[in-house]
Amino acid sequence: DVFSGQKTTVFETMSIMAAERPGGCCNLGQGFPDNELEGPEGMKQAATAAMLPPNSNQYPPMMGLPELRQAVAAHSGRHAGLPVDWQRETLVTVGATEALAAAFLALLNAGDEVIFFEPLYDSYVPMARRAGAVPRIVQLHPPSWSIDAAELEAAFSPRTRLLVLNTPHNPTGKVFNQQELELLAALCQHHDCLCLLDEVYEHLVFPGGAPHVSLRSLPGMADRCLRIGSAGKTFSFTAWKVGWLTGPADMVAAVAKAHQFITFTVPSAMQVSQPGRGACQQRAVAHGLEHEQSFYSGLGPLLQRKRQLLAGQLQQLGFSVLPADGTYFLVADFGGLLPAGSTEDDVAFCQRLVRDAGVALIPASAFYADKATAPRTLVRFVFCKTDEKLQAAVDALRSYL
Amino acid sequence: DVFSGQKTTVFETMSIMAAERPGGCCNLGQGFPDNELEGPEGMKQAATAAMLPPNSNQYPPMMGLPELRQAVAAHSGRHAGLPVDWQRETLVTVGATEALAAAFLALLNAGDEVIFFEPLYDSYVPMARRAGAVPRIVQLHPPSWSIDAAELEAAFSPRTRLLVLNTPHNPTGKVFNQQELELLAALCQHHDCLCLLDEVYEHLVFPGGAPHVSLRSLPGMADRCLRIGSAGKTFSFTAWKVGWLTGPADMVAAVAKAHQFITFTVPSAMQVSQPGRGACQQRAVAHGLEHEQSFYSGLGPLLQRKRQLLAGQLQQLGFSVLPADGTYFLVADFGGLLPAGSTEDDVAFCQRLVRDAGVALIPASAFYADKATAPRTLVRFVFCKTDEKLQAAVDALRSYL
Ligand SMILES: CSCCC(=O)C(=O)O
Ligand SMILES: CSCCC(=O)C(=O)O
Repeated sequence: DVFSGQKTTVFETMSIMAAERPGGCCNLGQGFPDNELEGPEGMKQAATAAMLPPNSNQYPPMMGLPELRQAVAAHSGRHAGLPVDWQRETLVTVGATEALAAAFLALLNAGDEVIFFEPLYDSYVPMARRAGAVPRIVQLHPPSWSIDAAELEAAFSPRTRLLVLNTPHNPTGKVFNQQELELLAALCQHHDCLCLLDEVYEHLVFPGGAPHVSLRSLPGMADRCLRIGSAGKTFSFTAWKVGWLTGPADMVAAVAKAHQFITFTVPSAMQVSQPGRGACQQRAVAHGLEHEQSFYSGLGPLLQRKRQLLAGQLQQLGFSVLPADGTYFLVADFGGLLPAGSTEDDVAFCQRLVRDAGVALIPASAFYADKATAPRTLVRFVFCKTDEKLQAAVDALRSYL
Repeated sequence: DVFSGQKTTVFETMSIMAAERPGGCCNLGQGFPDNELEGPEGMKQAATAAMLPPNSNQYPPMMGLPELRQAVAAHSGRHAGLPVDWQRETLVTVGATEALAAAFLALLNAGDEVIFFEPLYDSYVPMARRAGAVPRIVQLHPPSWSIDAAELEAAFSPRTRLLVLNTPHNPTGKVFNQQELELLAALCQHHDCLCLLDEVYEHLVFPGGAPHVSLRSLPGMADRCLRIGSAGKTFSFTAWKVGWLTGPADMVAAVAKAHQFITFTVPSAMQVSQPGRGACQQRAVAHGLEHEQSFYSGLGPLLQRKRQLLAGQLQQLGFSVLPADGTYFLVADFGGLLPAGSTEDDVAFCQRLVRDAGVALIPASAFYADKATAPRTLVRFVFCKTDEKLQAAVDALRSYL
């Protein structure tokens, strides 16, 4: 009965409220980029060209097209500081969400404990629970979302099987620093647990901030870490639903056993590409990872500028903006905007804004498994939108507030 | 540890062996159609056109694009004899495999019993076990794959939560008849259990044979049955990975709670279509379901002819071909081909054929959860291939045997 207690995910609910609002709505809720940030046109052309030739619309291999797996291996080698053997250490999944689900179902047994940092993405805890595991949740403390080392150590036990780390982090934009990663590496080795690294925002880091470092690249960690990546985030094609896992051969093989019974394989045209190179045996995402690196390396500076634009104006409106080093999410405290004595929480605030101001945001408590421990006056803005849309949202907020 | 005991699915293994064989190989193993049987060109054009416009590559709704859900509802109304409310009674999934996984994870709790008919598709039992359930397996008896009513009744217990019915049936091609369906309906109502109907081959039935009837259309069954359909099978686009579920609103809502954490949503261009109707707000599959009905209603006669072609030649070679009313699978007994006293089983036979004859088949025991109870001399041929390929396979078998 793990799922029967669940609501529809807040990202969906907010997007529907935004789409259905009479008079329109600025949707800074669900994390999906505007056209301006979408991946290179060549990738779309490659994907569509791959679908048209005869015999190009049948099952790709269960693990993914070799060309994409080779590109994923090379990409991980370049960006995560570790060479990856494409044949044994890569798996293509239906987005990062399936990679997470398959990993939980493959790696966890009844009674295993899993360490998560909160705030956290809303699929983590239900899926780990559905696999029979017991979540052990460690708080990131605002405003800088710091870890308390004693709290972290206390979360480990002889039953700890897995630690889940999302960096750069949704919703906070925190990029875990070297010192934090070293603490995590030491504890995971001491307690001999595995790590699931949700690094889908790996390329969305701001110049001058903490650089993204994969926990997998630290000494002693390569054999216990699975790293998750995403074409939806790396190329801003969230509808493509192409994700991947890299890691030690035994862990990848274990997750593939779950993947083959969850989705079996990933739509091939999406994995495919390069017109004139042989239809489905090629790869849009592979092409992107190999030949469009300037696209994703340009995202950090672009997003940093957008964040500054939004943050400055929100501060003028009376929001207090929390710091961040990456992602396209911005967390702000609206406490200063409430009349003295108001007890309005983040959910009520967001409902009021989407209804009356025409601005859709996500309440931060949506990222807490236990709502009772959630901060009450934080909201998440998405800023991977055109400057005009960001300005329109700020204007709507200004005239409403 | 449910998955760690699993091997890579035999369909994948056989396709890889076929692809890697020096000198080539006729792959009549994994079930995917040749170009000749692929869906209408207009669907491909529609899908690709949907991907190119700006802002058409971001998350579609979690439940699926409204246009596709409407088309699925209309299709189910036409073909399963029941009107379906698209907003509450449909869900789009990443192929039928995800629909099955999401249904098992959503509907089953620890200790629940699930009734399956064997032979069965290889994801069923591991996924139901992973959900905590206990499989109760009922044999279909060759050569006509009949049910023994007493065996079926004995499989029910107070813990029976779900019955899984695949009709038309993979690998046997059996189409469950009215009398069998009535028995199932009576038992499911008597024991008040739910039904998961894997009807992905619903349109692949032969003229003159048992017609496909959905268990959901029988009196008293609509509120307890979820029906699974597939664009991969209906339009022969197995790489598209678009499936759907229809059923009572409460069951669909329950499965959607699992789906949102397994894959969240389905690649949108694949759901999309009709050039010039508004990019991702449209639908290749929706288009197909609404405007390409002659395609899938033509599959039955086409496949029947191919089956007759293959069956006649296999019989000449000494195979004994089992009867069937649908699907693109043919089960044959090779016992008569073995030298007296040979104890070679189906797995050894298939390995020998793929290696030495260059013909890939699937051993029937792959469809048995407990290999010890499996028939030993049955193999499955796939015949959704060009006549030339079928002939080439027969020729290769003839010169080898
Ligand atoms: C799957 S919808 C959520 C998209 C996302 O990653 C977010 O908004 O946090
Ligand atoms: C997912 S691979 C198997 C395809 C199929 O349905 C079959 O061959 O039985």
